[in-house]
Amino acid sequence: MASPIRILGLDPGLRKTGWGVVVSEGSKLSFIACGCVESDGTLSLGERLRQLHEGIGRVIATWTPDEVAVEETFVNRDPQSALKLGQARGIALVVPALAGLAVAEYAANLVKKTVVGVGHADKKQVQMMIRVLLPKAETKSADAADALAVAICHAQHRGMRTLVAQMRASA
Amino acid sequence: MASPIRILGLDPGLRKTGWGVVVSEGSKLSFIACGCVESDGTLSLGERLRQLHEGIGRVIATWTPDEVAVEETFVNRDPQSALKLGQARGIALVVPALAGLAVAEYAANLVKKTVVGVGHADKKQVQMMIRVLLPKAETKSADAADALAVAICHAQHRGMRTLVAQMRASA
Repeated sequence: MASPIRILGLDPGLRKTGWGVVVSEGSKLSFIACGCVESDGTLSLGERLRQLHEGIGRVIATWTPDEVAVEETFVNRDPQSALKLGQARGIALVVPALAGLAVAEYAANLVKKTVVGVGHADKKQVQMMIRVLLPKAETKSADAADALAVAICHAQHRGMRTLVAQMRASA
Repeated sequence: MASPIRILGLDPGLRKTGWGVVVSEGSKLSFIACGCVESDGTLSLGERLRQLHEGIGRVIATWTPDEVAVEETFVNRDPQSALKLGQARGIALVVPALAGLAVAEYAANLVKKTVVGVGHADKKQVQMMIRVLLPKAETKSADAADALAVAICHAQHRGMRTLVAQMRASA
């Protein structure tokens, strides 16, 4: 019997970074908490990144995840937007690493495919499937739903990885 | 007489983030230290960003700057490179902000124009001008030279900003 693993999913964005915590125990998945860390658009970039840094730090301190998963956003926009998103993503990756946590990355398409079944699902479909998979989750924002989707994706794929590792060890 | 201000310049990059510290006192500029914070390419992205975070943190703790300036890299490459650069830039912006320091940003072209006299100077020209402006600086790497250039740019432009603020206050 696999021991329960607490997973934090993060959907990084400079204005809003969604977060969601689930517990995965064997094939069972339970909702713990979710929300958004926001930054104040009237402040300087350094200050906004500090708000995200401190906010994600508080989430980790409060919900004490065992593992963290971050969405690897598909970048099809201009380089300037990619730079901006990258800055927020850097914070989402570094705060768990500073806390000594392993951070897995999943492509947005894989997250959608795992949760909804298709890689090109829209935000509404993701939110609906989160309601089905985690009935107790109150995902008021699409960012929090996306973050829970990343956490669910990690729960599925980390299981597969563990299985492969066990098969290799016994081979 | 203006009191001396210690300025840290940062040239962010995921592999290597250059840093340079100068003291600006009136129109006088003195070299304090410079170097590079590097990340290990064999580690995960989160771990590499943690290395940059801790390295920049050590530079700030050791050299105790009053103000920080970061190069606003011109992004003409593909979105994927911009995302990568953005992640390193996010760390360069957030670490000083976490230490309560003001972070100014300067476009790469303005940095070159201020230091070399032309906006499209190459790395060699920047390194040569740094040797002229800061004879004591031993800039073994182009990244450290670029970081000193950002610090010099801030020294020049913060003076102008202070002057404008004083003129406005007395008007």
